[in-house]
Amino acid sequence: MAQKKMILDLDTGIDDALALAYAVGDPNVDLIGIISSYGNTLIETAAQNSLNLLHLLGANNVPVFIGESHSSTTDHFDVMPISQLIHGKNGIGEVVLETAPRHVETQSGVDFLIAAAHQYADDLIFIPTGPLTNLATAIKKDPAVATLIGNTTLMGGALTVPGNVTPFTEANIHQDPEDADYAFTRQKNLTMVGLDVTLRTLLTKKETAAWRALNTTAATKFAELMDFYIDAYANLGIDKKGAALHDPLAVAVGIDASYVTTLPLAMHVTYDQKSGDYGRTIGDKDKLLVPTTTQVAVLVDTDRFVSDFQTMMLSVLNN
Amino acid sequence: MAQKKMILDLDTGIDDALALAYAVGDPNVDLIGIISSYGNTLIETAAQNSLNLLHLLGANNVPVFIGESHSSTTDHFDVMPISQLIHGKNGIGEVVLETAPRHVETQSGVDFLIAAAHQYADDLIFIPTGPLTNLATAIKKDPAVATLIGNTTLMGGALTVPGNVTPFTEANIHQDPEDADYAFTRQKNLTMVGLDVTLRTLLTKKETAAWRALNTTAATKFAELMDFYIDAYANLGIDKKGAALHDPLAVAVGIDASYVTTLPLAMHVTYDQKSGDYGRTIGDKDKLLVPTTTQVAVLVDTDRFVSDFQTMMLSVLNN
Repeated sequence: MAQKKMILDLDTGIDDALALAYAVGDPNVDLIGIISSYGNTLIETAAQNSLNLLHLLGANNVPVFIGESHSSTTDHFDVMPISQLIHGKNGIGEVVLETAPRHVETQSGVDFLIAAAHQYADDLIFIPTGPLTNLATAIKKDPAVATLIGNTTLMGGALTVPGNVTPFTEANIHQDPEDADYAFTRQKNLTMVGLDVTLRTLLTKKETAAWRALNTTAATKFAELMDFYIDAYANLGIDKKGAALHDPLAVAVGIDASYVTTLPLAMHVTYDQKSGDYGRTIGDKDKLLVPTTTQVAVLVDTDRFVSDFQTMMLSVLNN
Repeated sequence: MAQKKMILDLDTGIDDALALAYAVGDPNVDLIGIISSYGNTLIETAAQNSLNLLHLLGANNVPVFIGESHSSTTDHFDVMPISQLIHGKNGIGEVVLETAPRHVETQSGVDFLIAAAHQYADDLIFIPTGPLTNLATAIKKDPAVATLIGNTTLMGGALTVPGNVTPFTEANIHQDPEDADYAFTRQKNLTMVGLDVTLRTLLTKKETAAWRALNTTAATKFAELMDFYIDAYANLGIDKKGAALHDPLAVAVGIDASYVTTLPLAMHVTYDQKSGDYGRTIGDKDKLLVPTTTQVAVLVDTDRFVSDFQTMMLSVLNN
């Protein structure tokens, strides 16, 4: 099997940092770029965090691009207070990283995605772990993107469980439901990795203690930022058993879909402010008898993924 | 394989009539009784409809019991206007049936269910196609019911698609969300056959024309009541392609679960009037890592079920 190309679309973010490390570490994919998004942090912060994390992991060869800085229906973006409590004001748990020698690219993230879709097509895996604004913007600019990208596996949404912003909406989708709906209803070969499965993959301080024991700079920094996240999950009452591996699960599923059981379902995202279910990812009842390439992850092999994730992290951080 | 015993819990209702015919006709089960519920009609109407339909099908040996006449949180029940438009004022599409010689039993439906649970246990299949008030009432009176009944397969709820009363709630669940939650969170081996799958099984006038061609009284009456339902679906804009086989699908799945793909998921039903999602059947995020015996049907073999249903109806109605 030829090595696939991967693009991450990150609002970096602690679990985004884990997704980045997983993609850097997995020999089955070639990480060809990271597009920045807004969400857990402002877009500039996300981009600089990605650059610094790549530098920390010795992956300065990976370019970082700037995507859309706010949703399609707003003219700016403010970080939600809850995001700062979970990810820290700097997005990576107040951990200070050495500034990367590399800078962000001048090409826009949206143009990079469009070019890569044409260049790699079926061999491209695209992993958005924040709002779907960049993907929707790319499709609007070049509709061929919707059919070209071989595999789009996103972290976001909630189908069989309640959301984490309201009972109906998950945080990434909630940032830009209009563009999420645009992407969900157009992008071929879309797989949703939502709270349905990510809430079943928890990391604890047992695993981060094993990272710290590697005694490398990368391991120490990642243990610090992940412990911040685990503490936030416990202190905010989100989950006292551990912190969900939201974004890295999307990367893993993008590479190896056998981690999850998926349900084929044509979905849409509600975005009528008056509907009472703003930002809900839900099946389209008018398309139940129509074939679809959209898949929703509904079950996950928790033990296998958490074990493989830990093996990957111990490898990536041991440099 | 020993023949299983089946109890139907019907608010008869047009698709309930189809469920009744399917259970009468399937040689794999012994229909030992029908409990009446409120919903599509008042409870007395539902009971008389069941008696008359059994008589029409030559199944006067099946006893009919009266269940709870209203929800656990109300003191009476009024039929919703939309129900009358879909099922007719008499519940069976204004079709007039010969009055059965048999009368309803004096034993209450709830006591019948409790006794049958103890007598047949694992060999009992219980199929509620209306509100879950009778089941919850039985569990409250005798908690052993929750673990005794071998197989409870209900028609109701909506997990991966919107509801049909509000975007969150399906009609059967909406009648009594409190008791639905009581049953969902206690009843072992519960399978939900909701709108997720029933909206994928449609019957058209092509099939009812084939019934009518049998030229029996039963076939003519069933064709008349089903055509009323198909017309209502079209006229109300619910579905112009055909009418959903909600209740008979639950009977078929209760007998042969291979008609559907199910997702194991511990669910609950929201019933806080202020929550905005009153009557929603949704996964319990606090139980995602706990084993469960609750299953939700999420996919259905549409062609196989509709074909088998039609074969069964042509057999049952040809007398």
